[in-house]
Amino acid sequence: MMDRREVIKLGAGALVTGISAAAAAEAETKPQRRAEAEDGVEQWGVFEATLQGPSSGNPSVDVTFGARFTLEHRTVEVTGFYDGAGVYKVRYSPDTPGRWTYETTSSAKELAGHTGALDCVAAKPGNHGPVGTAHQFHFQHADGTPYFPFGTTCYAYGFIGAPWDATTLAALKRVGFNKVRMCLLPKPLGVRKPVAMPFERMGAALPEGAETLEDGGTSKERFDLTRLNPEYFRHVEQRIEDLLAAEIQADVILFHPYDAWGFKSMGAEADDRYLRYAVARLSAYRNVWWSIANEYDLVKSKSMTDWDRFFRIVQESDPYSRLRSIHHSRVPYDHAKPWCTHASLQEYDFEKSPARLEAWNKPILYDEIQYEGNIARRWGNLSPEEMTHRFWRAIVAGVYATHGETYITTDGSPVWSDAGELRGMSGERITYLRKLLERTGTTGLMAPERPYYTNAGNEGQRYLYYFDFHCVGEYEFPLPAKGSFKMTLIDPWAMTETPVPGVFSGKSKVTLTGKPYMAVLIEKA
Amino acid sequence: MMDRREVIKLGAGALVTGISAAAAAEAETKPQRRAEAEDGVEQWGVFEATLQGPSSGNPSVDVTFGARFTLEHRTVEVTGFYDGAGVYKVRYSPDTPGRWTYETTSSAKELAGHTGALDCVAAKPGNHGPVGTAHQFHFQHADGTPYFPFGTTCYAYGFIGAPWDATTLAALKRVGFNKVRMCLLPKPLGVRKPVAMPFERMGAALPEGAETLEDGGTSKERFDLTRLNPEYFRHVEQRIEDLLAAEIQADVILFHPYDAWGFKSMGAEADDRYLRYAVARLSAYRNVWWSIANEYDLVKSKSMTDWDRFFRIVQESDPYSRLRSIHHSRVPYDHAKPWCTHASLQEYDFEKSPARLEAWNKPILYDEIQYEGNIARRWGNLSPEEMTHRFWRAIVAGVYATHGETYITTDGSPVWSDAGELRGMSGERITYLRKLLERTGTTGLMAPERPYYTNAGNEGQRYLYYFDFHCVGEYEFPLPAKGSFKMTLIDPWAMTETPVPGVFSGKSKVTLTGKPYMAVLIEKA
Repeated sequence: MMDRREVIKLGAGALVTGISAAAAAEAETKPQRRAEAEDGVEQWGVFEATLQGPSSGNPSVDVTFGARFTLEHRTVEVTGFYDGAGVYKVRYSPDTPGRWTYETTSSAKELAGHTGALDCVAAKPGNHGPVGTAHQFHFQHADGTPYFPFGTTCYAYGFIGAPWDATTLAALKRVGFNKVRMCLLPKPLGVRKPVAMPFERMGAALPEGAETLEDGGTSKERFDLTRLNPEYFRHVEQRIEDLLAAEIQADVILFHPYDAWGFKSMGAEADDRYLRYAVARLSAYRNVWWSIANEYDLVKSKSMTDWDRFFRIVQESDPYSRLRSIHHSRVPYDHAKPWCTHASLQEYDFEKSPARLEAWNKPILYDEIQYEGNIARRWGNLSPEEMTHRFWRAIVAGVYATHGETYITTDGSPVWSDAGELRGMSGERITYLRKLLERTGTTGLMAPERPYYTNAGNEGQRYLYYFDFHCVGEYEFPLPAKGSFKMTLIDPWAMTETPVPGVFSGKSKVTLTGKPYMAVLIEKA
Repeated sequence: MMDRREVIKLGAGALVTGISAAAAAEAETKPQRRAEAEDGVEQWGVFEATLQGPSSGNPSVDVTFGARFTLEHRTVEVTGFYDGAGVYKVRYSPDTPGRWTYETTSSAKELAGHTGALDCVAAKPGNHGPVGTAHQFHFQHADGTPYFPFGTTCYAYGFIGAPWDATTLAALKRVGFNKVRMCLLPKPLGVRKPVAMPFERMGAALPEGAETLEDGGTSKERFDLTRLNPEYFRHVEQRIEDLLAAEIQADVILFHPYDAWGFKSMGAEADDRYLRYAVARLSAYRNVWWSIANEYDLVKSKSMTDWDRFFRIVQESDPYSRLRSIHHSRVPYDHAKPWCTHASLQEYDFEKSPARLEAWNKPILYDEIQYEGNIARRWGNLSPEEMTHRFWRAIVAGVYATHGETYITTDGSPVWSDAGELRGMSGERITYLRKLLERTGTTGLMAPERPYYTNAGNEGQRYLYYFDFHCVGEYEFPLPAKGSFKMTLIDPWAMTETPVPGVFSGKSKVTLTGKPYMAVLIEKA
C-alpha cells in the first residue's frame, strides 16, 4: 500500500496545472489545493488528491470515483470527478484539525484502494470557515463570526473571461460586497461568447457570428450531454477560488432559464449527472452556496418534482451541507421545505417579512429587489437612492437584500449584473450599512412585531431605526428603563454619523433632522 | 290660503338674519337663500321658506315640519328644521327649471298647509350642479361637467371661528383644492374652543381653561341632547355656503371619535335626531357630500348596525341623494353595500386599487394617505415630494386621493388639517395635476389591468404615464396602431411640460429624462 500512497502524493504535485511560484506565494489567502506534508491543509481549506485512470470510453459515465476520509471515529465519504485526459480528482475540506487518513474507492481497479493522510492545521487569520444559518433568522461562519450577506449579482462572472472577470473581482473588493450570485451554466452574452461550453461539442463550434445567442433563442450547435467539459469548469472554479481569496461568498446558481443551447431542458439523466459533477467539483470550497435555480418557474420544461429532486441530490451529495436555496420569478417556492436552508426571493415588499419569517422559520434573502440602472425594463432602472433605501428597509425588517445593476453601456462592455464594471452609486452605501452592522457586535438584528417606526435590534442591547419616507423632526424613542444608551444620527446616503449628546434611558425625546430616509443607531453606552 | 302665502314670503324676507346689501350683491355666486319672485331660484340653488311657529316646550322633539314641492307630475317631500326663537325653515334645491309650488306639513297647526311657489331659473355660469358618480369609477356634476376630486382635510374649519375660517377659505381658493373634508360635530382644539356647541348646555359653560379638552378626555360640561343649538349649525352652514361660492365641495363628516363632550356616544335616539337635523338643514346645498364618519371603527360605542342605520337614515332623509361614504381607521367598511356611493379609505396602497374597484364597482377616494408635515406621529410627517407622489400614484391607478397637512406650529395657530394656514409645498402640485386632468377632456382615467409602467387613460384617446421610482431613460410606448398621438414630458414636482417633437403611432420609442418620478401625457393629435 505504501507504493500507492507515494503515487498519490506524486500525482498531487505533478498533475495540478499552472502552479507557479507566484501562486504558491499567495497560499496564505488562497485555498490549499495540494496535500503537502510539510504545510498541512488549513481547516476549511481544500485538500486535493489526483490520480491517473482510464481515459478510454466515457469516464464521466463509466467510472465511479471517490474517497473515504477518516479522523478518529468519523468517516466522510466524498465523491471525486473526472478532470479530462485520464485525470481523476477528489477534493476534501476538513472541518477539524488533526491527521486525516483516506482511501479511494472506484469502479476502476487502478483508482480504487489508494490510501494516504493529510494533516489538517488550524485556520489562518481571515479564514472563518463556511457560512451557515444561525440564531434562527441569520448567518454566521463556522468559527462563530457573524456573517451579514450584503451581496450583488454578476451572473456571467464565472464564464465571461478576461478582462471582465478581473474587472468584476476588483470592483467587488473595492466596494466590499461579500457575496455574489453567479450562474454555473452559461447564459447568452450578446456580442460576446462564454469562454467555453460545459459539455463537449458534437462536431466543430460554429464560426464566429454564425450562431444566435439571444435570450430564448436556440443555437445550431449540438453538445454531447454525457461528456462534461473540464476546461469550462476549471475556468469557473478559478473564479470561485478568487472570490474565496477575497472572502466573498459564491452563491452558485445551478439552473436558470437564460439559455441558447438547450441546457435548461437536458432531461433528468443529464441534469442529475451535471448536478453531481458540480457538487463533487465545487463543494469543497467553503465559500460555495447552492442556488438550485434562478427564476426556477420560468424553466417550463421542469416540474416541481424536478426542483425537489435537485435539492435532494445536492443535499445528499454535498458532504459539507453548504447553504441551499432557490429563487423564483412569479411563483415562490415553498421555502418551508426542509432542504431549503434559507429563502431566496424576488420581491421588495419587506413589510411582509414578519409573516414570511414566521412561516418559514429561517433566514430570508430578498435576492432580487430590482436593479439600479437606466434600462427601459421596469426591473432595471432604480435610482441609487432607491436601491440604498431598499437595503435599509430589509435590514430593519430583520432580513437581507441583494444588489444588482443594469446601466446601459455604449462601448459594448457588459452590464454589471452580468459582470464587468460597477457604475452605480448605491454599492458603497450598501457596504457602509454592512460595516455599520458589523461594528455593532450584533449576531443579527430582529424586528419587533408591530414597530411604530421601522427598526430592528437586540433587546436591551441595540436598536437600528430607519425612518423611511417619514420626515421626523422629533421622536420619543421607547428605550428600556434599565440600562443607558447612546444614540447616533445616521444619514444613509451621505454615510455620515452624528452622535447625539447625552446618555439615554426609558422614553427619550430626541430632535431629528426632519429629512426623509434618515436612520438612528442606539447602542448600550 | 293666499294669506298664508303672504306670511311665508314676508317671513322669508324678514327673518333671515344678517342679510346686507353686500351679501345681496354676492348673490350671483352665492346660493340663493330666499324666494324672491322677481329673481327666481337658480337651478341647484337654495330656496328657503321661513315660518313662525311654537317656541314653547321642545320644538326639536315635539314639532314635525316640512313641505311638499311639486313641478308638474313630480312631488318632492322635504323635511324642515327648527332654527330657534320660534322660527321654522324648510329649504329646497330644485333640480329642474320651472314654476314649483309647495305646501307645508306639520304636527303644529300654525305651520301646516301653507302654500307658495318658486320660479326655478337656469343655472348661472359656474354652477354645474351637484356632484354625483359617473362612468362607473368617476364623478361628474349634474350638468355633465366632469369632476375630479382633489381635496384636502380641514376638520375644524366649520367651528374654529375667526380668523381661521377666513384664512382656510383663502388658502383653499389660492391653491385650488376643490373639496374639503370637515367635521360637523366639534373636536377639541387644544388651547382654542369651538365657536359654540351643537347642543344646548345644561347649566352654564365652564369658565375659560377649566375644562379638559384633550383628545379622548371628558368635559365636565353637560348638554341637553334633545335641544340642538341653531347658533352652532348656522355658523357651520355659513362655512359651507362660503365653500359653495368658491365651487368647493364640502365633505361633511357626521360622526368622529375625536370628542371631549360625549357626542360620540349619545345613544341611538340623539344620534338619529342629530342626523335628521343635519340632513334637513344642509342637504339643500349642492356642494354637500355625506361622510357618515371619520375613522368609524375607533368609535367603540357604536356597532356596525348603527353605521348601517346612519347610512339608511341619510339615504332616506336626503331628497337629493348627495354622495355618501364612510371612512375607517383599521377595519374598512364594506363599501359594496348599496348605500355607499363611493369608497373612502385610509390607505395608500394604490396597487390594490384594481381588486377594490372590481369588488366595489364604484369610485374610490383614498381620503387619508397620511399628512405632509413634520410632527412625530408617523402619519403626519410626509415630505411634500412624497405627498405629491401619492397623488400621481392614485390618478394612474384610476382612483383619487385627499391631501392633509400637519406642520408643527410654534405660535399656537392651528395645523392646516384642523384649519388655518396652508404651509406645505404639495398643494399647488396637487392642483396642477387636477388642472392637467381637466385640460385633457377626459371624463375619468381608467387604469389597464396589468400595466408595465403605471398609467391610466381612455382607450385610443389619451394616456397618462407616471414612472414612479423608475429612472427611465428610454421607453417604447405601446400606442394604438390607429390614430396619431402627441406626447408631453411632465415633471410633476417642477410642474413643467416639455412637448416631444413629432407625432406618434403604434410602438413609439421615446427618450425620457432618466430621472425618477416623471410623467408623460399622450393625447390624440
